[in-house]
Amino acid sequence: MRILFCASHTKAAPWLDALRAALPGADVQEWQPGAPAAEHAVVWSPPQQFFDEQPGLKVIFNMGAGVDALLSLELPRDALVVRLDDAGMSVQMAEFVCHAVIRHFRELDQYARDVAVGRWSYRRPRARADYPVGIMGLGVLGERVARAVAQFEFPVRGWSRSPKAIPGVQCYAGAEELDEFLAATRILVCLLPLTPDTADILNRRTLSQLIPGAYVVNVARGGHLVDEDLLALLDEGHIAGATLDVFREEPLPRDHAFWRHEAITVTPHTSARTLREETVAQIVDKIHALGRGEAIAGVVDRQRGY
Amino acid sequence: MRILFCASHTKAAPWLDALRAALPGADVQEWQPGAPAAEHAVVWSPPQQFFDEQPGLKVIFNMGAGVDALLSLELPRDALVVRLDDAGMSVQMAEFVCHAVIRHFRELDQYARDVAVGRWSYRRPRARADYPVGIMGLGVLGERVARAVAQFEFPVRGWSRSPKAIPGVQCYAGAEELDEFLAATRILVCLLPLTPDTADILNRRTLSQLIPGAYVVNVARGGHLVDEDLLALLDEGHIAGATLDVFREEPLPRDHAFWRHEAITVTPHTSARTLREETVAQIVDKIHALGRGEAIAGVVDRQRGY
Repeated sequence: MRILFCASHTKAAPWLDALRAALPGADVQEWQPGAPAAEHAVVWSPPQQFFDEQPGLKVIFNMGAGVDALLSLELPRDALVVRLDDAGMSVQMAEFVCHAVIRHFRELDQYARDVAVGRWSYRRPRARADYPVGIMGLGVLGERVARAVAQFEFPVRGWSRSPKAIPGVQCYAGAEELDEFLAATRILVCLLPLTPDTADILNRRTLSQLIPGAYVVNVARGGHLVDEDLLALLDEGHIAGATLDVFREEPLPRDHAFWRHEAITVTPHTSARTLREETVAQIVDKIHALGRGEAIAGVVDRQRGY
Repeated sequence: MRILFCASHTKAAPWLDALRAALPGADVQEWQPGAPAAEHAVVWSPPQQFFDEQPGLKVIFNMGAGVDALLSLELPRDALVVRLDDAGMSVQMAEFVCHAVIRHFRELDQYARDVAVGRWSYRRPRARADYPVGIMGLGVLGERVARAVAQFEFPVRGWSRSPKAIPGVQCYAGAEELDEFLAATRILVCLLPLTPDTADILNRRTLSQLIPGAYVVNVARGGHLVDEDLLALLDEGHIAGATLDVFREEPLPRDHAFWRHEAITVTPHTSARTLREETVAQIVDKIHALGRGEAIAGVVDRQRGY
């Protein structure tokens, strides 16, 4: 078995070592232009040239949960595209989102500003019932986040393309229930896959429907958010703040208004990192399962986009 | 029934209104020196004079979970002292502690410092297994915090005076297992009651036993922590940082080193606030239960100190 590894912005050596150790019989190589044909690929943001040169690929393992960048390329028509499912990402996402929700709800940034000037301040406790949290996207990550937030007794709503049932979460589905979901949400968490249906979904029309004083947490893709619409609604006071981990262009361009906006917390796409050990274990398990002719989780529906 | 309300640093009117509304037959008054005798009291940090004038009190309801300040006074010998149990505090404690643990583990302060200077940074993800969280005190608040932290897949240890069993938490008990608990802990959370046994329990000897690079979260009482020992261990690098919500003197004196130490996050005793609605409901329920001759939760063992 021959496996090509092709990941931008990633040091290849430790990944190659880990894959080779876990698959002693396999020939695992880092892709170079002109490399001999392979049937398996492990990729993150590969160039189009990689797929142009490897029309015989049978399985493409994506080293992340989001496959929007991958699907924007021309891929071998019949190759199975497999996204990472969980592999240590859902717990990271749950902690990142809970941290952002708690920080906002408990006004911890305001306390920090007071403390920075030596002020011992008193703030009236907010009522949890006034801060319903709405999760857009209820896949593996979204469901985990919803359950984690619910544990802190916030009212939790969820919205997804197809109907879901999650204990303790009021679920809405489809375009026809989106407005109702938004009107019942004050802290909005975006965990959607980026597809033509969801691009620009966080815009003036949708964000305006949130409960006033809303807070936006985008941990999905920068392409979900219309940056100028968020900035305008912050200026107008309808939105109180945002935590943004993903951006249309990454790294976030130096002159972008998000960097220095006092109500926006920027993080460098770090909400749920790909963890090597867990990721290699998952890919190897799936290679073995496919070898035994078994079905595997995480196979992407290329029409649907996730 | 006559109830006296005596709470320092608290606006009495809304509490009196709420108690009167919930107990239509009762005579609820704010204490003034010379007030007629009552059998029930609802108090927070009352002066000694209050008890000197009210030797006939039968039940003293404390408007918080910690009764250390109350028990330092001379109380009517046979009065029942009743602490607040939960009443919306455990969820606040869980979110405050989880926020602090996540902020430290995920290096969110470091990311914020990078972002403040326009830097899109990369930090190698930390391994959760290297950050065991140890909770000191496994009462209502401690157990809730332990369960909340465990949900984020940290190894969780707990230490308490008497042995406890909490699923997913490795429990230690008593003075003889304290060292073993400390040696297995990197993020230490103090939720103990303040008693003669626990005063100064966070000191050089105990803190030195934590896994190097330790982090300390004190949300119990300032009297648990020997301030200079923490500062020395921070200087020496054994301790990486701390989140402190409680202090020996509150408000924290203006010249105290904690205010401006860059590895210490100070908050103004806000981790778990007394919520009026929940507190009044709990006290009223207990008054009714006592009236029916039933046992109630939260009765303080005055010898034990909590």
